[in-house]
Amino acid sequence: MSGPLSASERRDRLRLARTENVGPVTYGALMDRYGAAGKALAALPHLAARGGRTAALKPTSIAEADRELEAGERLGAVLITVGEAGFPRPLAALDPPPPVLWLRGDANLILKPAVAIVGARIASAAGQRFARALATDLGQAGYVVVSGMARGVDGAAHEGGLARGTIAVLAGGVDDVYPPEHKGLYGRIVAQGCVVSENAVGRRATAKDFPRRNRIISGLALGVVVVEAEQRSGSLITARLAAEQGREVFAVPGSPLDPRAKGPNDLIRQGAILCEGIEDIVRALQGPAGFVAEPQLDLFEDPERDQAALDAAADRLRGRVYARLSPTPIPRDEIVRSLNEPAPGVLAALVELSLAGRCELLPGGLVARGD
Amino acid sequence: MSGPLSASERRDRLRLARTENVGPVTYGALMDRYGAAGKALAALPHLAARGGRTAALKPTSIAEADRELEAGERLGAVLITVGEAGFPRPLAALDPPPPVLWLRGDANLILKPAVAIVGARIASAAGQRFARALATDLGQAGYVVVSGMARGVDGAAHEGGLARGTIAVLAGGVDDVYPPEHKGLYGRIVAQGCVVSENAVGRRATAKDFPRRNRIISGLALGVVVVEAEQRSGSLITARLAAEQGREVFAVPGSPLDPRAKGPNDLIRQGAILCEGIEDIVRALQGPAGFVAEPQLDLFEDPERDQAALDAAADRLRGRVYARLSPTPIPRDEIVRSLNEPAPGVLAALVELSLAGRCELLPGGLVARGD
Repeated sequence: MSGPLSASERRDRLRLARTENVGPVTYGALMDRYGAAGKALAALPHLAARGGRTAALKPTSIAEADRELEAGERLGAVLITVGEAGFPRPLAALDPPPPVLWLRGDANLILKPAVAIVGARIASAAGQRFARALATDLGQAGYVVVSGMARGVDGAAHEGGLARGTIAVLAGGVDDVYPPEHKGLYGRIVAQGCVVSENAVGRRATAKDFPRRNRIISGLALGVVVVEAEQRSGSLITARLAAEQGREVFAVPGSPLDPRAKGPNDLIRQGAILCEGIEDIVRALQGPAGFVAEPQLDLFEDPERDQAALDAAADRLRGRVYARLSPTPIPRDEIVRSLNEPAPGVLAALVELSLAGRCELLPGGLVARGD
Repeated sequence: MSGPLSASERRDRLRLARTENVGPVTYGALMDRYGAAGKALAALPHLAARGGRTAALKPTSIAEADRELEAGERLGAVLITVGEAGFPRPLAALDPPPPVLWLRGDANLILKPAVAIVGARIASAAGQRFARALATDLGQAGYVVVSGMARGVDGAAHEGGLARGTIAVLAGGVDDVYPPEHKGLYGRIVAQGCVVSENAVGRRATAKDFPRRNRIISGLALGVVVVEAEQRSGSLITARLAAEQGREVFAVPGSPLDPRAKGPNDLIRQGAILCEGIEDIVRALQGPAGFVAEPQLDLFEDPERDQAALDAAADRLRGRVYARLSPTPIPRDEIVRSLNEPAPGVLAALVELSLAGRCELLPGGLVARGD
């Protein structure tokens, strides 16, 4: 946590985050190396060319970034970037963290201890009643309630949590109200709670935005409660992400005769904490903190050494790294092990390949071929 | 397992089992020592007097035993005693096993692999439907369904299990039909299944008979499934007994909004296997067998040693044992440890005290003062 960010550095961070082929892993690696987004932006074309890109990589322009910043300002939203004091530590500890977040409403809420409630869109009346009551109890116990503003359980959780603070994490831009019948709820959350999005202001959510959104829901929370969920549903993906992030997973049991109980019951069988109410959550969260910061690696080589020799070595290594990639994601560690090369060099090669669009750096330490 | 039992030895076993102050622990200890019920009956008055009884202990008479045997015969019921070939091994392995059992219906059923289903008397329609369907599935998977013929879940389990074999364990005599509306069900179980009771023919159940009945339900089964149960209900006691007996405990989850789900949900939290259907049961029971035979101790002293000296020593020890007892049950092992005396001598003293009505030998290795 350093001092306040200058307006131009914040804009440069937004530019870097919005640049083609710069995902959150690459963003983090570049910021680690260059320390400031402006320097990273300047290095981008060179790095992308080293990675094998033929057409020049054009960073997002100042004008484009200004357009997004002005659109956010008109909404009264604020932009925070990873590393700033206002950025939630549990979220910053993710591997990788989201580079930037738009917040509309009470930006302080995202710094408070939070619990996520997720569940079926087509939820039972009983499930929605339970979610609403649990959210109210969580609020009274001092927890902010995080959810995804979807129909069903999500909406009920926000309603129940509204009085003590609730956070809606959207897959589209911070102004992308969906479903339409939640327009009123959205307005109340902006007024009393906080709406959060990693995405650009004005963007409509597409299918690929939901997994990143779900990572933020679980990432903001100490634990995730699954109220109702059919098998293979988005709520179960959020639960899996939560477990991977070291968050507690809670599941509300239900009758085997109700297909919406299948998801939570399966989670309990797999070790989730059976949740009948606030007591189960408070008991579990009073234990040790649920998240662990990933150690940060210095992904790049030492600049003091002979540059030409290093470049040639890096080129050879990059080729060997690329040869290991396939469209099926594999752990980056596996490449390090199979090549028997130091991790920083391998990861620098992957960052360059990713900027060239030749690979994709995925959450959870995975990488896939991108061309 | 020895050869077939003579009619007079069977009658003597019934007499011993029905004699005042002879509970199942004492019965087992006496049979271990004397090998035949007739010899044990002959020794009873002397042992009781040693234990401190002033009025003579009168064993149940031949005439009384004959009356019970004839009443059972009129019902077409058969009496089996622990140690006979027809006595279920899982039940014989209990500490202590029930000394005698009346069986009305198909006596072979109690030798087959069985699963118990228990639950709330005031069960939901969904709970009863689930119990019935699960019982049918268990029957098709080759398991006999054991329950207690109570209203609600028990009745539904018997109905579902009837076609492939079901066992009703009654707290009263084998002819004590309760509740009255289960008269028709009772008749069908006698015709197609088996009714079991440890109690005397013609006896009405009283409150104190239910814990012993519940031990037989779980003792006959490889596992016990709890379908619906409020907190502090009889079904949870059966589940606890099942766990103590090394049986698998299964619990069917339910919504926290349903008070009848509280019991099963708590059991899951405590480690019971979450059960959504037959698969969960088959998967668990295909593991190692669920019950373990307790090693049998020889509770009495070596008859070769000098009798007068032994008697005096036994009297002193009996007094020290008695001094340790209180109305609150304590483990018999604890007395052995605290007196630092060999276990067989301490347990012989307890048997004599129990025959005198001065202590009560309880299941699970416990003993309480009885006067």
